[in-house]
Amino acid sequence: MSDNPSFVLRSIGEVVYEQRPIPEIRDDEVLIEVKKTGICGSDVHFLVAGRIGRYVVESPMVLGHESSGVVSKALVGAKVKSLKAGDRVALEPGATCRVCEDCKSGHYESDEKLCDNIVFAATPPSDGTLCRYYPIPADICYKLPDHMTLEDGAMIEPLSVAVHAVANIGNFRPNQSIAVFGAGPVGLLCMAAARALGASRVIAIDIVPNRLDFAKSYAATDVHLPPAPEAGESRIRYSERNAKLLMQTLGVAERGPTAIDLVVDASGAEVSIQTGIIIAKAGGTYVQVGMGSPEVVIPVTTALTKELVFKGSFRYGPGDYPLAIALVSQGKIDLKPLITHRFSFEQASEAFQTTRAGKSEDGKGVIKAVISGPDVSPDDLM
Amino acid sequence: MSDNPSFVLRSIGEVVYEQRPIPEIRDDEVLIEVKKTGICGSDVHFLVAGRIGRYVVESPMVLGHESSGVVSKALVGAKVKSLKAGDRVALEPGATCRVCEDCKSGHYESDEKLCDNIVFAATPPSDGTLCRYYPIPADICYKLPDHMTLEDGAMIEPLSVAVHAVANIGNFRPNQSIAVFGAGPVGLLCMAAARALGASRVIAIDIVPNRLDFAKSYAATDVHLPPAPEAGESRIRYSERNAKLLMQTLGVAERGPTAIDLVVDASGAEVSIQTGIIIAKAGGTYVQVGMGSPEVVIPVTTALTKELVFKGSFRYGPGDYPLAIALVSQGKIDLKPLITHRFSFEQASEAFQTTRAGKSEDGKGVIKAVISGPDVSPDDLM
Amino acid sequence: MSDNPSFVLRSIGEVVYEQRPIPEIRDDEVLIEVKKTGICGSDVHFLVAGRIGRYVVESPMVLGHESSGVVSKALVGAKVKSLKAGDRVALEPGATCRVCEDCKSGHYESDEKLCDNIVFAATPPSDGTLCRYYPIPADICYKLPDHMTLEDGAMIEPLSVAVHAVANIGNFRPNQSIAVFGAGPVGLLCMAAARALGASRVIAIDIVPNRLDFAKSYAATDVHLPPAPEAGESRIRYSERNAKLLMQTLGVAERGPTAIDLVVDASGAEVSIQTGIIIAKAGGTYVQVGMGSPEVVIPVTTALTKELVFKGSFRYGPGDYPLAIALVSQGKIDLKPLITHRFSFEQASEAFQTTRAGKSEDGKGVIKAVISGPDVSPDDLM
Amino acid sequence: MSDNPSFVLRSIGEVVYEQRPIPEIRDDEVLIEVKKTGICGSDVHFLVAGRIGRYVVESPMVLGHESSGVVSKALVGAKVKSLKAGDRVALEPGATCRVCEDCKSGHYESDEKLCDNIVFAATPPSDGTLCRYYPIPADICYKLPDHMTLEDGAMIEPLSVAVHAVANIGNFRPNQSIAVFGAGPVGLLCMAAARALGASRVIAIDIVPNRLDFAKSYAATDVHLPPAPEAGESRIRYSERNAKLLMQTLGVAERGPTAIDLVVDASGAEVSIQTGIIIAKAGGTYVQVGMGSPEVVIPVTTALTKELVFKGSFRYGPGDYPLAIALVSQGKIDLKPLITHRFSFEQASEAFQTTRAGKSEDGKGVIKAVISGPDVSPDDLM
Repeated sequence: MSDNPSFVLRSIGEVVYEQRPIPEIRDDEVLIEVKKTGICGSDVHFLVAGRIGRYVVESPMVLGHESSGVVSKALVGAKVKSLKAGDRVALEPGATCRVCEDCKSGHYESDEKLCDNIVFAATPPSDGTLCRYYPIPADICYKLPDHMTLEDGAMIEPLSVAVHAVANIGNFRPNQSIAVFGAGPVGLLCMAAARALGASRVIAIDIVPNRLDFAKSYAATDVHLPPAPEAGESRIRYSERNAKLLMQTLGVAERGPTAIDLVVDASGAEVSIQTGIIIAKAGGTYVQVGMGSPEVVIPVTTALTKELVFKGSFRYGPGDYPLAIALVSQGKIDLKPLITHRFSFEQASEAFQTTRAGKSEDGKGVIKAVISGPDVSPDDLM
Repeated sequence: MSDNPSFVLRSIGEVVYEQRPIPEIRDDEVLIEVKKTGICGSDVHFLVAGRIGRYVVESPMVLGHESSGVVSKALVGAKVKSLKAGDRVALEPGATCRVCEDCKSGHYESDEKLCDNIVFAATPPSDGTLCRYYPIPADICYKLPDHMTLEDGAMIEPLSVAVHAVANIGNFRPNQSIAVFGAGPVGLLCMAAARALGASRVIAIDIVPNRLDFAKSYAATDVHLPPAPEAGESRIRYSERNAKLLMQTLGVAERGPTAIDLVVDASGAEVSIQTGIIIAKAGGTYVQVGMGSPEVVIPVTTALTKELVFKGSFRYGPGDYPLAIALVSQGKIDLKPLITHRFSFEQASEAFQTTRAGKSEDGKGVIKAVISGPDVSPDDLM
Repeated sequence: MSDNPSFVLRSIGEVVYEQRPIPEIRDDEVLIEVKKTGICGSDVHFLVAGRIGRYVVESPMVLGHESSGVVSKALVGAKVKSLKAGDRVALEPGATCRVCEDCKSGHYESDEKLCDNIVFAATPPSDGTLCRYYPIPADICYKLPDHMTLEDGAMIEPLSVAVHAVANIGNFRPNQSIAVFGAGPVGLLCMAAARALGASRVIAIDIVPNRLDFAKSYAATDVHLPPAPEAGESRIRYSERNAKLLMQTLGVAERGPTAIDLVVDASGAEVSIQTGIIIAKAGGTYVQVGMGSPEVVIPVTTALTKELVFKGSFRYGPGDYPLAIALVSQGKIDLKPLITHRFSFEQASEAFQTTRAGKSEDGKGVIKAVISGPDVSPDDLM
Repeated sequence: MSDNPSFVLRSIGEVVYEQRPIPEIRDDEVLIEVKKTGICGSDVHFLVAGRIGRYVVESPMVLGHESSGVVSKALVGAKVKSLKAGDRVALEPGATCRVCEDCKSGHYESDEKLCDNIVFAATPPSDGTLCRYYPIPADICYKLPDHMTLEDGAMIEPLSVAVHAVANIGNFRPNQSIAVFGAGPVGLLCMAAARALGASRVIAIDIVPNRLDFAKSYAATDVHLPPAPEAGESRIRYSERNAKLLMQTLGVAERGPTAIDLVVDASGAEVSIQTGIIIAKAGGTYVQVGMGSPEVVIPVTTALTKELVFKGSFRYGPGDYPLAIALVSQGKIDLKPLITHRFSFEQASEAFQTTRAGKSEDGKGVIKAVISGPDVSPDDLM
């Protein structure tokens, strides 16, 4: 049988629908009927540029990796005990090797380079989830509580990125303060995660006033709009000025109860990184989750003398999906305001164009666009 | 009484001997007869430039902070129970406030900005230890075992910097591998500390072949001499080439048992920092202990995708002095090979000039120069 | 001047009011006008038995240590910068030595045995806080936000015991589950702390149905009333039966998402300790905060094979007071329902009798009784 | 083919040799030719009692689980890349599920209860390694360096138990002190591990003077022989006296540099557990690795007031085998003195009897007996 319509990236900028075979599954896998898929910047990047760093699209690849779905009736692996047909699940899109040192010590998120057999949805050469049927190991499917929608379920992927950065890598504790650079989807979710985890203060920084307005309405307690650079001002001097302004305006100290415990950069911009290192408290933590310029200037002596801990955060690891689902399930995070645009499976190209443009034809800004599976209505959140 | 000869920095480049008053002590302090003092690059820097960062010499200041001595007969504070007159001790030169959040949570090393009353020897405006009598809280004097010399005792200060970087901040564990950039005193002591802590492999990197030879004879298991930069090659491209060369030559992998668990930069050089970030294993740790250019370019996407933990290490904190003394006392670290030059108290200026030149007139390279206290012979290691 | 009325324990069962001198203060201290003081079981124990373990009342001692007050106008130490006259503060009643290994590494809560000079209020031989004026180092006075009452402030002491046990020693994380044995003041505050820290489930266990009812109305999501012991049943067999019943009734598994992440025993009862060890999840944490029988039988093989981490929790340490205040200030914990009885300073004896009896003459059960300072009305929560 | 001679426990006390089929392997497994197998107390216990706790021998079971061997020529799984035929390896005898929460978070040692499919050698119902051919996942076979013998390789299993208890669960750091109760194989290996990890002091406690003599010659710096109990003395009072005696005799304090940082009980005896809790330093760690009486009396108030961390240690987890091999390979642990008796495959029954008796007919005490594989000479350490 080949009744598996799939949205395929053929080459740069060229996407088509193909009928692919219905996948077979191993005895530890289930077959998922994909219902909702969010579009990520990386999906758009593959469409536009054909590559991200060393990941190059060399043969046709199904796009999409932020998905939820339902366990298919026919196909549940013989060894699978945790799931049954009909279960509504969020999909963790990376199936790791389970045998390397990193996997076995609880850090599978950073093991991509080792595993020859890693399958991360829509990272070449592995196909993504924008299709009817997707095969996946049962242990990386997470059941959704009845009161959460499958649309919520699709958003668990980016929320897990945020939960990984804030709770796991950032080790954020109740009553701590956080500053988040970048008010895009991941930045907003970092703010929401920090809020849900008991933040005393959530400072949002972005260069777009509208995004700050939304952040304030959504999860930030304070916002900071960086000033315009001055003529001839170097980036690092600008960042120092920006940091000083933020600290003065918002009453942020270098240490003590009004200092910033955790800084998360979800922008990838050099001046954000510089400013973030400067405003973090002595002995504090800085987490880099946004990707931008591969190389940036940092104020290293400042980082040294205050014994800053600067950590990279990549994707998610053990425990992040369950915590993300729990925070939504308990009502501590509301994902609905972030989903600004909805498309049918047939409108997938339009969804990508809209995400790339940053706004739809009616001028409405995109935070997150979600594509429904084949035969599912965009209006049905399921 | 003012019988306290002191070696004083008057202004940039101008040093004189002064007779200072014999200090009075508080009830939790002891008065130390200073016997041996090593010269640190920061001492030389104050002499030559009059400042280090925001620390500016604005009034005459006694130099020196790497010292050992003997508890003076007359002056032991009323509350002091841990020491008695005649005890031979290593001096931890920073008396912290003990009441701020950082001090009370066990991280006094990074609390300098808070404490108005902090006294760190030879950091303006506090006087240093190149004098006959130095007052100091008893709890930051550490008794030396009988078989350790007072010269060893003076070296505990830089060794504690290394122990802090490797054992405490770097959380180095037995059977881990380490790469250390910079084979000066602190770099060599980081190698020695790692070796003493059970390193499986200690890789020394330096651009001076002689220093690598010494490192190999002292504590390194492997050495790497970076190649010459090519014409027109950017620093980051050079660092990538350097990293690749090191990994190929020494059989270093990106992960698994042949990867580098901990990188310590004791050079402060931009290309060392860049190379170090690239060669550290996925999920590994990088510690910045060397100060150089205040701003450097780093390969931030590389740090992010491998979830590197990049940490600043400043001076030392609770437990570092005792561990440093124990490792020497147990014979796991030999400090004697590092002391290349010895001077009397009257020769203090010559000691500084020699350290600044990097070699004595006979051409012998300086690793560490030690100045004896007044009335003590440089030949008497005590 | 000796205008400092104090409530003094003279000998077992004998309490009197004395006029004590107004204390002098050191330059790092402030003088507090004590306004509200809660009564703790340990205060009652000293009154009734004259000792707790190795702490023996050998000379007259002022009682009380759960206090809040106002910084007195006249007396603020010369070095004190964090407080000024009129500040409303919660008092941390233990002034530690600040120089021992434990203090300097951030664990002052367990350093009592070392410090000859430790002053813990109302632990012999140190006087307590049931007086008009109490001298205390400024850094262990914590300012109360304007919207918190001084009665709330007095409750910060027992809440800090709970925060220390749950957040610090128990390392409780959002979305974890907890079981608390004992629904007295500390147990209830442990439940409240866990709830405030994002608990997914809070199970209260107590042998008194009324206390469970209150726990359910206050902070518990589930309650368990242990069954009656059977004739001839050993304690350990009873505990196994009790544990099995709890797990069946409440749907608690040995591991996985329905297992209990953290068990806190605030009862000190042997069967609670046994039951708690059995119901904790594999690899989970058990915290002992309640004191009861000095020796108990534990199922040690069970603890071993599931690699349980069993930790003692004593008083509080760095960071606990600030977190306790923050959780109340943010509205995440409501202390008011716990204060069941209020007394004037003149009624101090009656307050102790009521606490000892466990209920007042009108039959109302005591959770916490609070004694106001001299000249303060019990009705004025301040 | 069924040329796989195996040493089988039929029923209590009844062992026979059977010809079993040569196992088939999965694509992630290798077939091992077993060469050396140490006998563990648990093997003897199954032989004598037919059960350990809830593990009951209900059908014939091959014994043995402390083994090394060589990767068989014919059978290497298709997916296996880390091993090739002829490789000499130590076998980690527990194949875990790899999909549960514990496995994925890096704690597979405590996941036995979850995994229906767990295969732990010679734990019912899984067969052990006393046979010619044993199938095992490739990732739990660890290559031995050329200079280590296969007899060393068989000893890696009990050494990993010790490394897990001391380095992993006990978090033992250089310059710390340790006390180990029980000088049997695991206790001695805990001492050796602590010594290799940089212990400042290793105190051995045992009631058999000969064992203390051996411990002193092998890895202990100090020994303590408990006194005889007095008539009518309760166990806890005896333990208090024993602890006091140890502390006085050996100069052990309750805190500070002469206190005991880590206590490991490898005896399982109640008085050892009690004594160990008493002598551990305030804020110190106690690790229970020895199994004995399932229930014991502990001094719980003592554990509470000093905030002791009491941890169970079961088998081994990620990283323990590699560290164990490294410490032997680097010459920091010598396993040879522990192997007191050697037997051929045909003498397996005699090996068990000798281990059970605790000494051979010539009166020589057994520390560890090793049985060679079929066709291997006991004299050939390989």
